Amino acid sequence: MDAKGNGEMAAAATGERAIPVRAIAGPTNPMVTPLLTDLYQFTMFDLYFRKNPFGGEYTVFAGLEECIKFIANFKLTEDEISFIRDSLPSSCEDGFFDYLRGIDCSDVEVYAISEGSVVFPKVPLLRVEGPIAVVQLLETPFLTLINYASLVATNAARHRFVAGKSKMLLEFGLRRAQGPDGGIGASKYCYMGGFDATSNVAAGRLFGIPLRGTHSHAFVSSFMSPDEIVEKSLQSSDGSHTCEDFVSLVQTWLNKIQWSPSLRGIFGETNQSELAAFTSYALAFPSNFLALVDTYDVVRSGIPNFCAVALALNDLGYKAVGIRLDSGDLAYLSCEVRKFFCTVAKDFGVPGFEKTGITASNDLNEETLDALNKQGHEVDAYGIGTNLVTCFAQPALGCVFKLVEINNQPRIKLSEDVSKVSIPCKKRSYRLYGREGYPLVDIMTGENEPSPKVGERILCRHPFNESKRAYVVPQQVEELMKCYWPGKPTVELPALKDIRDRCIKQLEKMRPDHMRRLNPTPYKVSVSAKLYDFIHFLWLNEAPVGELQ
Amino acid sequence: MDAKGNGEMAAAATGERAIPVRAIAGPTNPMVTPLLTDLYQFTMFDLYFRKNPFGGEYTVFAGLEECIKFIANFKLTEDEISFIRDSLPSSCEDGFFDYLRGIDCSDVEVYAISEGSVVFPKVPLLRVEGPIAVVQLLETPFLTLINYASLVATNAARHRFVAGKSKMLLEFGLRRAQGPDGGIGASKYCYMGGFDATSNVAAGRLFGIPLRGTHSHAFVSSFMSPDEIVEKSLQSSDGSHTCEDFVSLVQTWLNKIQWSPSLRGIFGETNQSELAAFTSYALAFPSNFLALVDTYDVVRSGIPNFCAVALALNDLGYKAVGIRLDSGDLAYLSCEVRKFFCTVAKDFGVPGFEKTGITASNDLNEETLDALNKQGHEVDAYGIGTNLVTCFAQPALGCVFKLVEINNQPRIKLSEDVSKVSIPCKKRSYRLYGREGYPLVDIMTGENEPSPKVGERILCRHPFNESKRAYVVPQQVEELMKCYWPGKPTVELPALKDIRDRCIKQLEKMRPDHMRRLNPTPYKVSVSAKLYDFIHFLWLNEAPVGELQ
Repeated sequence: MDAKGNGEMAAAATGERAIPVRAIAGPTNPMVTPLLTDLYQFTMFDLYFRKNPFGGEYTVFAGLEECIKFIANFKLTEDEISFIRDSLPSSCEDGFFDYLRGIDCSDVEVYAISEGSVVFPKVPLLRVEGPIAVVQLLETPFLTLINYASLVATNAARHRFVAGKSKMLLEFGLRRAQGPDGGIGASKYCYMGGFDATSNVAAGRLFGIPLRGTHSHAFVSSFMSPDEIVEKSLQSSDGSHTCEDFVSLVQTWLNKIQWSPSLRGIFGETNQSELAAFTSYALAFPSNFLALVDTYDVVRSGIPNFCAVALALNDLGYKAVGIRLDSGDLAYLSCEVRKFFCTVAKDFGVPGFEKTGITASNDLNEETLDALNKQGHEVDAYGIGTNLVTCFAQPALGCVFKLVEINNQPRIKLSEDVSKVSIPCKKRSYRLYGREGYPLVDIMTGENEPSPKVGERILCRHPFNESKRAYVVPQQVEELMKCYWPGKPTVELPALKDIRDRCIKQLEKMRPDHMRRLNPTPYKVSVSAKLYDFIHFLWLNEAPVGELQ
Repeated sequence: MDAKGNGEMAAAATGERAIPVRAIAGPTNPMVTPLLTDLYQFTMFDLYFRKNPFGGEYTVFAGLEECIKFIANFKLTEDEISFIRDSLPSSCEDGFFDYLRGIDCSDVEVYAISEGSVVFPKVPLLRVEGPIAVVQLLETPFLTLINYASLVATNAARHRFVAGKSKMLLEFGLRRAQGPDGGIGASKYCYMGGFDATSNVAAGRLFGIPLRGTHSHAFVSSFMSPDEIVEKSLQSSDGSHTCEDFVSLVQTWLNKIQWSPSLRGIFGETNQSELAAFTSYALAFPSNFLALVDTYDVVRSGIPNFCAVALALNDLGYKAVGIRLDSGDLAYLSCEVRKFFCTVAKDFGVPGFEKTGITASNDLNEETLDALNKQGHEVDAYGIGTNLVTCFAQPALGCVFKLVEINNQPRIKLSEDVSKVSIPCKKRSYRLYGREGYPLVDIMTGENEPSPKVGERILCRHPFNESKRAYVVPQQVEELMKCYWPGKPTVELPALKDIRDRCIKQLEKMRPDHMRRLNPTPYKVSVSAKLYDFIHFLWLNEAPVGELQ
């Protein structure tokens, strides 16, 4: 119903020629070009989605900041204008190109729900007002900037919900993302949706997101044996002394572990290339020793090697960060590793060693996190990649951009599928809260209706199903949209960290049954009685009457 | 097993600080920093995937050009180097930063299969050779550039396979893509995989892809009635005369259609805002009149309105391009529309009108195309968006980048999951063709083995399953990889159009049962007997021996 539009008349009009656009812009659509009388028609468009993703009953709204930055810089260059001139019939008047030269978003206003809010189907995330020529140019860029951002932020929030508050969640998705920009965007919006850190260094730098990671399997297999290590000395953490041969110290500890009564027989000879890799890593980053232990065999090689290096570091006053498991039965292995750590802590008198961090990765998603919870595990942190950033369970959100008013005339988009009929008019929307502090229902009203008041009995109607309606007496009323672009840059946009905090708080405020992973209760979205009547009046007015034969 | 690695030691090492990278780069990983003795280790990495996407048995390789462009421009800036200096312990030697200042890809060689080739699991798409420090910096960018490119090109090829050669395939996905770059990349690689055009104007300009499109629903609903149209005159196609009131001419035709004996009763009054929109569009672009006919009602409003405008255009020597259906039962509606066109062609004596184009869109994918084929339809062109560009059926391809040799020592990556064990050594790979001209099997050999020869009996072994092997006598032998980057820019890379042609030819050369949408026959990938023996020798050598208790 709505994939496309923008840029398409341009394509049709210019045959196989293209209209140039700025890098971020997406298609530029000069569809109004020869219709100069229409250029100044004053329009309003709503941007909204029709269905929550991932079988859930909520969505996190993200991408607003990028939209505002986009319109703040919206301007056609001379190059672009002369390209358009070349692409159009020569009969086109000069006045049109002067018009193009002059357009920017100073006549446009954007109202929006705050970024990081929990949002629901049909309620406008943005309302864009302005001359049709300009507003139509914003359609595709806005959809492109909001659809994926909101989808992946929602996916992150859902993973956080299953993992629980106490776990560390790390986004590891760049290499499987849908293009470099998909990777950078994923890192930003996963953080917004409740992740703690990313392994994407570029995103860390751009957005100030905490960075976390380990080394790669290739780092481990690039070593042959500890004999290769030339620089063997390591200064103690407090700088008081230097261990001249850290490699031997590690070897000594490996022997001690191997022959400790409680660990004897668990492993034989460990892999020497792995031992060399861990030792090198510890020599380089003694305060950040986090080792990937599954290159050869977790229990028989990775963990003993890790513990030998960690105990050697401990002698010099350093505390190892932990290990990462990236294959196998994560529930079982994490428990085995924890047991090993506890034994080492006890046998060698290293208090706290039992709490050494365990990070798990390898194709994790909501289902596997849930399964781990059910089986019992000892994982402290999850690294999640492919399923998170590509939104494997549902890789697209269906936001649409629909005309709701033109020159003060409300417009409706009909469809044989009722769920695709648009809600006309310039509207306001509110969230009504109940006695227990939970949001109860979102309600849309006409622009000029009085706003719902606390303590007042309000009739909330389903926009399209006449039998679904309910009275609500709100204990709190929150207006959802505010002006983010009154034609010029206004107050500073909130920082990513603040948007993230808002998002986490909003998610916590929801009634738990709306948030369930499976079969959640739908959150209600409604219209006022007045708006309901108007929608249906307009609908009848626009729908053609059939002829019975 | 492989999501991450790069940039992660950097993250671990610098806490929450980030290493700066160029826009395209993805994470930069200075993992080797304090290990100067290792910087010059000479390594070889293979980039490959383990499983074809979409339940199929083939993949289209895409993204190579972007990789070569990336390494051709690979250089750390002074800003980036000083950022790295600030992020590392002050004990780091100056020589290291001089080293960083000097690195580029002149010591790196890249061998690759040609872009647009049909490829299979385990066979290297790229082999990257060079100093470990530099090659590791290429891992994440290469994976990011190839994973999605190959996935979406394969998806496009699969859609083409189901739609058939005679249909026009249009990519309409920008607004649902995973970020703006996902949109631009999708347009490029869908074209490569066999699509004909895109609605993405920016991609059209960047890559010279033909542009196609219609207008949007909002364009239709932005009109109220034909009375709004001020400029009503239209010159005839040959410039010989001018119709002063095209609006009235359209109205005249609408009345004729309505009262034509064979169409009477099919529709009553059509929607006037739609009629106004179509008329305006035709006045602006008389040679490119393609109308979206489902804003109100296809048969009772959209089609009669379209035909009225198209017949008015016909009076002036213009030929309407066609209509687009974007909702409802596309099989049924397309047949109804074709009937209508045939009736008009006959009743009003307009030969060729019955062939007016019918484009269908609305959440199309492989399954819906297949269903349309089974039901029978009259669609000439498909516009495909969301399912195509987000690869809804499987949104990620799992390419990995594995160390296969270091300082002439072959390396293997083990795993409890046999499908994740890597194939070691610097290798060559060949495609062997059978008597009927179809590819029979891909075979990998050690670098120094003699290449397979036409007419010679060759033993092809499954790399990990000792019972799976077969003799092949090839009628044609094609070496798959060639050098694309010998340390400097070489011959020009092929044009997108040529890559697309190659891809289409390669797909046509495959045996049909490998290409089936459901339950296709797996294509065989093998290793030489020598390489088989060596893999298993190395495997036994690296795997730790357990201790029975």
